[in-house]
Amino acid sequence: MAASGGSSWPEWLAAQAAERAAAGLQRSLRPRPADDDLLDLAGNDYLGLGRHPEVVAAAAAAARTWGAGAGASRLVTGTLALHDELETALADLTGRPAALVTSTGYQANLAVVTALAGRDALVVSDAHVHASLVDAARLSRAEVAVVPHADVAAVSAALAGADGRRAMVLTESVFSVLGDAAPLLELAGVCASYGALLVVDEAHGLGVAGTDGRGLVHQEGLAQQEHVVVTATLSKALGAQGGAVLGSPAVVEHLVNRARPFIFDTGLAPAAAGGALAAIEVLRREPALPALVHDRITALAGALGVEVPAGAVLSVPMPSPQAALAAQAAAREEGVLVGCFRPPSVPDGVSRLRVTATAGLGDADWARAAGVVGQVAKELGAGSPGPGEQGAR
Amino acid sequence: MAASGGSSWPEWLAAQAAERAAAGLQRSLRPRPADDDLLDLAGNDYLGLGRHPEVVAAAAAAARTWGAGAGASRLVTGTLALHDELETALADLTGRPAALVTSTGYQANLAVVTALAGRDALVVSDAHVHASLVDAARLSRAEVAVVPHADVAAVSAALAGADGRRAMVLTESVFSVLGDAAPLLELAGVCASYGALLVVDEAHGLGVAGTDGRGLVHQEGLAQQEHVVVTATLSKALGAQGGAVLGSPAVVEHLVNRARPFIFDTGLAPAAAGGALAAIEVLRREPALPALVHDRITALAGALGVEVPAGAVLSVPMPSPQAALAAQAAAREEGVLVGCFRPPSVPDGVSRLRVTATAGLGDADWARAAGVVGQVAKELGAGSPGPGEQGAR
Repeated sequence: MAASGGSSWPEWLAAQAAERAAAGLQRSLRPRPADDDLLDLAGNDYLGLGRHPEVVAAAAAAARTWGAGAGASRLVTGTLALHDELETALADLTGRPAALVTSTGYQANLAVVTALAGRDALVVSDAHVHASLVDAARLSRAEVAVVPHADVAAVSAALAGADGRRAMVLTESVFSVLGDAAPLLELAGVCASYGALLVVDEAHGLGVAGTDGRGLVHQEGLAQQEHVVVTATLSKALGAQGGAVLGSPAVVEHLVNRARPFIFDTGLAPAAAGGALAAIEVLRREPALPALVHDRITALAGALGVEVPAGAVLSVPMPSPQAALAAQAAAREEGVLVGCFRPPSVPDGVSRLRVTATAGLGDADWARAAGVVGQVAKELGAGSPGPGEQGAR
Repeated sequence: MAASGGSSWPEWLAAQAAERAAAGLQRSLRPRPADDDLLDLAGNDYLGLGRHPEVVAAAAAAARTWGAGAGASRLVTGTLALHDELETALADLTGRPAALVTSTGYQANLAVVTALAGRDALVVSDAHVHASLVDAARLSRAEVAVVPHADVAAVSAALAGADGRRAMVLTESVFSVLGDAAPLLELAGVCASYGALLVVDEAHGLGVAGTDGRGLVHQEGLAQQEHVVVTATLSKALGAQGGAVLGSPAVVEHLVNRARPFIFDTGLAPAAAGGALAAIEVLRREPALPALVHDRITALAGALGVEVPAGAVLSVPMPSPQAALAAQAAAREEGVLVGCFRPPSVPDGVSRLRVTATAGLGDADWARAAGVVGQVAKELGAGSPGPGEQGAR
C-alpha cells in the first residue's frame, strides 16, 4: 500500500513551508564571517569572554593537551581531569556542593528532569520556562502542571495537589526572553514546605546576576539548600559551550547513574571545557565585568523607558510584529544586531526587541550601539505594545 | 501538607542508590590525566583523529579566529561561516544533498524525530537503536512501534498498519553496542514502497564503514534517496564534538524552522567545528585510515572467534556479567581499556565486552592491546554466552 497523497513526506514538507511563508515566519541561517564589524546586541556572550585572550588561549591549549574531543561518553573513558577541574570551579563559583558538566545546557535540563521525575512524579512549570525545560518535562512522562508566570500562589496550589507524589518546580532565575527575575526565595520556601524540589535554570543568570556574577541562587542565600537544583550553560556569560548541573552530591550521583542525556553522550570537548574554566577564572578576578554589564543595561533601560532587568537581557515591547521587524532591520542597517521576537514565539504574545548588554564592546562601540538601538526603537514605538497584542497569553 | 515520608526526595535518592548498590550497578566517573599511558579500546575515536596534529591545530586555530563559543543560537547570531563550511564538507563526504550541524549527536536525533514526527505520525523503531533515538521518539509524541532487531518483515508489517499516517523508521547503520550492520537496502526499499521516511543514525558508521569511510548509506547507493535521512556525530571517527543531519534541502529547511533542539541551543563551538572540518580533510586524503581500522578489527575478530563487524565495534559475548567484569578488570591491569556491557544495559540481555579498533595507536601498541584483549577474553570464556542469558530480550 503506497501512502495516500495527502500524507506523503514531500507534500507535507512543502505544505509546512508554504504555511510558514504565508505567515511571514520563514527563517533561514545567515552565516557570519569572522571579521564582520557588526555590533552584536543579540547574542549571549554577556561578558565578552568568548573572545577574551585568556579564554581563547585556554581553549586552544586544552585542544592541544587533550585533543579535539573527549573521545567517549563520560562513564566509559570520556571523563578527563579537565572536566573534574571545571566541575570543582563551577561548584565553587556558585557556592554549590557539587557539579556535573554536560555537553549542552539543553541536555543539562533534559538530564535533571528526566532522571529525577517520572510517571510517578508531578512537575510544576512556570509558563515562561525555556524550550529545553518544556521538552524535559514532556520527556520525563511526569504529569506536568503549567502555572502562570512568576505566580507563587499558583505553584503552591499545584503542589497542594501532588497527593503524596514527588514534586518538582521548574523556573529560570533570569528569564531568557523577557529578562525578568523569578521570585526565587518565595518559590524555595513553598517548595520546602511541600517537600518539593526547585529546579532553577541560571542560563541567563550565571556570570551576570547576583554578587560578582555568582547567580541569583547564590545571591538569595539558597546555594546550600539541598532541595534546590541549579542548571546552567557554559555558552553564554562563560563564552564557550556546554551545560552544568549544580546540586547535592546525591543528585549528581543519581544523574551519573540514571540520566540518559548525560550517560549516552560524548563528554564535553576539551576546548570548551578549558575555555569555560578560564572564563570562570577571569570572572572571579574581575567583578568589574558583571558590574559593567549591569551599568550598561541599566542606562539603556532608562533611555528606553523600560524596567531595569535582573541580568543582561532587555525586553523592549513594540506595538506590532511589523514595528519590531522594522526596528531590527533599521538597527542592522546601522551595523547593530538585536533580537526580535514575535508571536507565536513570545511567551506573552507581545512583539518585542530583545537587546543584550555585553562587556565585550569598548565604550565607544557600546555607546554607538546603544544609541542606534534607542533611536530605532523609539522611532518605531518602543514601550507601547498594541492593544490587540497585550496579554494574548 | 508536608510530603509523606516515603516520597521525600532525600529518601527517594537514598533508596535508588541502595538499589543500585545491591544490584552491583553503581557507576562512578573516573577522571583521566592527560598523560596516562593506557591503551584505549573502549572509546570511539576510531581513526585517532582527536589527537591528530592537523585536527588539533585546526581546533586551536578556530578558537583563536572565532572565539571559544558561537555566542548565540544558530538562528540569532550564532551561525558562523565555519558552520557553513563544515556542513558543505559533511554533505560532500557522505554524498548527501544538504547538511545541518548540531551541538551533539544526541540533539541531532532529537531534532530530526521531533520536528518531523508528531501525534499524527507513526514511528517504527528497531529494538536496538541508541538511547537518543528512543528518547527522540518518546518526545515526538508519535505512536511508537518497537520491532525486533534487524527484522525487515516486522518493519513492513508495522508500516502496513500506518493507516494513512506519515511514517518514519528508525535504525542505526552500524549498531552501537553489538557492532552489526542494519539491512539498509531492504529497509530503504520497504520504506519507499510505503512512502515512509528512513532515519539512519551513522554515528558508528561515518568515517569507518563504507567506501573510504563515507558511511553505509553512501556504500549502499542510498545517498541521493530523498526519503532517507541520515544523522551522525562529529565526536567519534571525526574526533571532535557535535552532531549532524544529512538529508534533502527540504528536510534541512524544515529542521531550521521547527526543530526545537536545534533552534533553542547555542551553535556548535568553533573549536569543535574546526576540528571536525580538519578531520574530514584528513579522512578524504587518507583512505588508509579506515582501511587500517578494518584490518585491525578483522584480525581481532578472528582471534576471538567472533563475526567481523561492519565498523570498528567488536562485540564479544561473555558467559556471565561477572566474567565480563573480570575480563575488563584484567585488561585494565595490563593497561588496556575495554568496554563492558551487562544487563540491563545490553539490548539482547547478553553480557559482553565492547572492544573498539582505532587507527590512533601505533602498530606495536595495537598489537599489545589486541593481545591482552584476546588473552583475557578467552581466559574468561569469551564467545560463549551463558544459556540463561541468551535471548533474554
